[in-house]
Parts: sequence; structure tokens; C-alpha cells
Amino acid sequence: MDMKMAELAQRSGLSVATIKYYLREGLLAPGRRTSVNQAVYDDAHLERLRLIRALAKIAGLPLQTIRAVIDSVDGQSSVLHAMAVTQDALVGDVEEEEPVSDEGRLEALTEAERVLDETIRARGWECEPGSPAHRAAVRAVAQLHEEGLTALVGRLDDYAQAADAVGRTDLEAVTGAASLEETIRGVVLGSVMRRPMLDALVLLAQQHYARQHATI
Amino acid sequence: MDMKMAELAQRSGLSVATIKYYLREGLLAPGRRTSVNQAVYDDAHLERLRLIRALAKIAGLPLQTIRAVIDSVDGQSSVLHAMAVTQDALVGDVEEEEPVSDEGRLEALTEAERVLDETIRARGWECEPGSPAHRAAVRAVAQLHEEGLTALVGRLDDYAQAADAVGRTDLEAVTGAASLEETIRGVVLGSVMRRPMLDALVLLAQQHYARQHATI
Repeated sequence: MDMKMAELAQRSGLSVATIKYYLREGLLAPGRRTSVNQAVYDDAHLERLRLIRALAKIAGLPLQTIRAVIDSVDGQSSVLHAMAVTQDALVGDVEEEEPVSDEGRLEALTEAERVLDETIRARGWECEPGSPAHRAAVRAVAQLHEEGLTALVGRLDDYAQAADAVGRTDLEAVTGAASLEETIRGVVLGSVMRRPMLDALVLLAQQHYARQHATI
Repeated sequence: MDMKMAELAQRSGLSVATIKYYLREGLLAPGRRTSVNQAVYDDAHLERLRLIRALAKIAGLPLQTIRAVIDSVDGQSSVLHAMAVTQDALVGDVEEEEPVSDEGRLEALTEAERVLDETIRARGWECEPGSPAHRAAVRAVAQLHEEGLTALVGRLDDYAQAADAVGRTDLEAVTGAASLEETIRGVVLGSVMRRPMLDALVLLAQQHYARQHATI
């Protein structure tokens, strides 16, 4: 269904100025020109804008990173590749990337990686050993160790089992999407907007088990 | 074991200036005076500083909120109450608290609450209906709806099941702690530092299931 710029803005929830900016930056394909200063846009434009909006406004990614994700969608890459690019963008954004010089820290990271890889093997996960997600997991486990939260690290297999259910559900929820673009948007939003929901659900579960603990 | 200020600083990972600030603010009890300008501190001081550090540096809570959590520990309240205070502090920090005036938004929140409460009932969770965690969950579900991510909302029960396992593991991991102070520290860090670990594990699970999807 063709629509003018004003309607595109209204339906995408973005300002006309923002849409024109994305057009200039080449993130959005030009509309079909209907006169010298008029163009119309279709559902593909709307879907693309919704993806860009998710990446920019909700995931808070910089333009360069958004371009990498968009390129992987435009390249009609596989879900696997597009998800890898999206994950890298999402994790890279929060990752501290200073080189590790401290020897104790290096030891902690090596030990954390050993523990993590054992858990990964136990679960039978096939995943990228050097991916930002893997490095983020190593750092998170090392940090728990450093804070003396060994009880949490000791339950790594239990957390991995829960994570398995979440990751499987994420994939099942997005792979029914109509287009790769919609799938990627699901992956991005699944990684960004599903988080607060899961976090809040965990708090509710904590309330429940804290209450049980109190009445025992 | 008694220690001087310098050792307390070194073992807590906090500067002397920061520790003196907490002493002035009454968050940390004074040490035992050994001369006019010397005092010694014990393991209770160290444990308290570790808790404050977790609340301040890792959870990023303001002083007023830290005081509320500390008060609940000092009041020797139950794990249940201390956890409620901690959860409120953690969620309240990120919650948008503007009043809802938009009618469509109000409708979305009402529907989200209905869906959420159905899931809570199905799981048999006993939790606080009006708690910040509950409100955060309602908002998160409403936001997924608003972004058209109905596939994710449709899997709410699956996410709740995974959250149940995480919340149960969190509680099991902390309730073995030696003191209420240590338990609260576990709850705080469990809610703050366990998150990046779980998030990263979910990404690894996504990689695994994306790969399976690709090879089917």
C-alpha cells in the first residue's frame, strides 16, 4: 500500500526529519517519485524503518553498527549470519575492550573460560568460541568469581539450562516471521526488549521462592 | 580479626576517603578506638563495606536507596522483607514513573496486566501484586505488545517457566550464606551481576538454536 512521507512518519513513529536523515544516509531506499517534490513509500519502507528504529531507539546502537546489521539483511544472508552480526552489535556495545594486563585478572578469565566451556559442552551447545557473546559470558563468570559469588558460579549449569529454554523460545518466536527483516527485528527486540520482561519475571519468581523460604 | 583503616581499604577495594564518607553518613559503624587518632575494624565492617560497594558501585544505587537496604539489614528483618526492599531499590532505579495519561497506553497496560496475572496464576507464583517488580513486568509486556512483538508475548508462559528456574536457583544459591548481610549481598549481586551472565548464556543458546535452524 503506497503512502506519503507524512503517513510513513506517523505509522513508523519517527519524525519526518529522522526519516529524511536515514534516506540521506542510504539506510532507507528512496521512495517512488510521483512528481518533482513528491514520493510514495510502501510496506517495505515501513518495515525497514521499524527495524532501524528498534536498532537506534531501543537498542541504542550507533549509526555505524546499524549499518552493519542492515547490510546483513540486505545481503539476504542466512538467519544464522544476520543473528551473529546482530549479537555482535548488541554485545560489542556494552563490552569493555581494554587489554588485560593484570596477571591475576588473566588467570581469573582463563579459569572462567574453562568453567564456561565445560558447561557449554555439557549442554551440547554448538556456538562460536571467539564470539563477543562468548567473551561476555567469560567476563561475567570471572566477575562473579572476583566478587566471591562462588555459589552463583557453582550453579552455572542450572542457569545454562534456563538460558537454553529462553534462547530456544526466542528462536521459535521469531522464526515464524514473514521476512528475514522481520526475523532480524525479532532477534534485536528479543535481545533488547525481552530482557526487561525476563528480568521482571525472575524478580517475581524470587518473591515466590523467598516467601516459601520464609514459611519453611 | 582486627585491621587498621589501610587494610580495610585494601581488602574492601574501596578508597580510605570513600570509607570515611560512609562512616560520616552512618552507613558503617565506627571502629574500635585504640588511640586518639587510631581505630581498628573487624570482619563485620568488611562485610558491610562489601555490601555497600555492591549497592553503590555495581548496582549504581543512590545513597538514599542504599540506606533503605542497609536499614532493612540492620533491622534484622527476614530474608523476605530484605529482598523486597532490595528488589524495590533495583527496579525503582530504572522505572519510568510518569503518570499514564494516554488512553491507548492505559488500555495496553490493563491488557498486559491481565495476561501477566494469568501467567502468574498458571505458575502458582505467590508474589506482591503492586510491587515495583510486578509493575515492571506489566510495562515490559505492554511494550512488547506496542512494538507488535505478539509472538514473544504469546510465549510468556515459556519465559515464566525459565524465569522460575532462574529465581529458584538465585534463592538456593544465596540462602546457604552465613549471615543475612551475606544473603542480601547475594540477592543484590544476584540481581545485578548474574544478569550479564544469564544474558550472555542466552546469546550462546540463541547461537546454538540459530545454527540448528540453519541446518534443518
